[in-house]
Amino acid sequence: MTDLSKSDFPAGMVWLVGAGPGDPELLTRKAERLIRSASVVFHDALVGPEVIAMVPARARLVHVGKRSGRHSKDQATIDKLIVAAALAGERVVRLKGGDPSIFGRATEELEACRAAGVAVKVCPGVTAASAAAAGMGLSLTLRGLARKLVLVTAHARAGEELDLDWQALADPDATLAIYMGKAAAGDVSRNLIRAGMPPETPVALVQSASLPDERHFHTRLDLLPLAAKTALGDGPALLLIGKAMQERDAAPKRVADTVSADR
Amino acid sequence: MTDLSKSDFPAGMVWLVGAGPGDPELLTRKAERLIRSASVVFHDALVGPEVIAMVPARARLVHVGKRSGRHSKDQATIDKLIVAAALAGERVVRLKGGDPSIFGRATEELEACRAAGVAVKVCPGVTAASAAAAGMGLSLTLRGLARKLVLVTAHARAGEELDLDWQALADPDATLAIYMGKAAAGDVSRNLIRAGMPPETPVALVQSASLPDERHFHTRLDLLPLAAKTALGDGPALLLIGKAMQERDAAPKRVADTVSADR
Repeated sequence: MTDLSKSDFPAGMVWLVGAGPGDPELLTRKAERLIRSASVVFHDALVGPEVIAMVPARARLVHVGKRSGRHSKDQATIDKLIVAAALAGERVVRLKGGDPSIFGRATEELEACRAAGVAVKVCPGVTAASAAAAGMGLSLTLRGLARKLVLVTAHARAGEELDLDWQALADPDATLAIYMGKAAAGDVSRNLIRAGMPPETPVALVQSASLPDERHFHTRLDLLPLAAKTALGDGPALLLIGKAMQERDAAPKRVADTVSADR
Repeated sequence: MTDLSKSDFPAGMVWLVGAGPGDPELLTRKAERLIRSASVVFHDALVGPEVIAMVPARARLVHVGKRSGRHSKDQATIDKLIVAAALAGERVVRLKGGDPSIFGRATEELEACRAAGVAVKVCPGVTAASAAAAGMGLSLTLRGLARKLVLVTAHARAGEELDLDWQALADPDATLAIYMGKAAAGDVSRNLIRAGMPPETPVALVQSASLPDERHFHTRLDLLPLAAKTALGDGPALLLIGKAMQERDAAPKRVADTVSADR
């Protein structure tokens, strides 16, 4: 690792750091450097355990995990903890699963820091949809077929109906990534089909993208509710919906002729 | 850098590697390892020069750059070069700006490899929209206000009209990221306003996200065409459109009362 100056991380500063999808190798080099320079690290339940293990022993590690249905600390409390640590002269890393700017509630923490006069910056990360596609060897966009990528989160309060504009989401020329989507799979399937999306639209469910227990399951939109109940283990999963998620053929066709022309 | 096994990168294999937005620190640790293990690296014009500089001296470096309007090699030729290198027993890294699965035409190269019986995997990267938001200290999503993130590319053949579904894109509750959007700024502004998006919708133009010459310019949807012509230098830029792109106050308000309660 290049020995980079720490001038961008003085005492009393906060970095919101994207921890990526879970695999510690999918941390950015910058995230690794910031984590190793921190005196205190506040982290989510969504940050992978091997990433947490990179926090130096001398640093204080604070779990402020939020996970669907189990909020161990509310957002206002997290904001205050981070600001208080910075004002006390710590080098604060706030580690967030994935990319802080995509469903990471970064704004609340950025504004709390700014309001308190605390310097704060963001280190971006690899978002779960990118890691999930990479793990399956698929692209999220396809020229001419999936020219748009739409990311939404299906995280809703317990018992509440998902409030999404299904008509706008039922776009056959897009890839739709639904973060935290497994619990809402029934709603997603029913509403997208009702809004005109073909029932046979390919869907991939991806759990623990990039981690050793990563699991993919390929299905179709109308069979998604059943698949979500039976195919994967516990824990959140990402739903990827659209033509780009067509499972590739297990047996590749040979086009050695084309290739050999170039050798 | 952890000394990780190279068992996932045998001779004769291809890795499509996300080079991230340009800052070499925003490479993932895995991308760094793969680049340092490669015997040949094929790269785009969109890969940052400092990332290119990380390619080991013993490795062959092949520029297969495509940039708006100047295609130095067509996709079929790139596919063949990569496959031929792998079949010749090289460790092939195909470096792509950003994330390979987001507007990276990964599918063509994945399929060419598979068709030739060449093992191929994808290493995800930080996409430009994440880096651009991080650089501005803004989030791409906002709870209740920008609950959806939509990525499209405005890359079109010279002289061709952009063929996008403006009605679907003119969603006031989304953040719209238009990759390679600067040249299309006039079309974008006119069509989104015609489709009902408020003219005062905040827009950020971001050039060279994460690089030393990174530039941001905040404007509004109706003023975007003028801004795109005058505000930034040459080269491609990302357009970020929506309420989440509201420029933050230069002078933060003090809420020391709230904070001090916790100290």
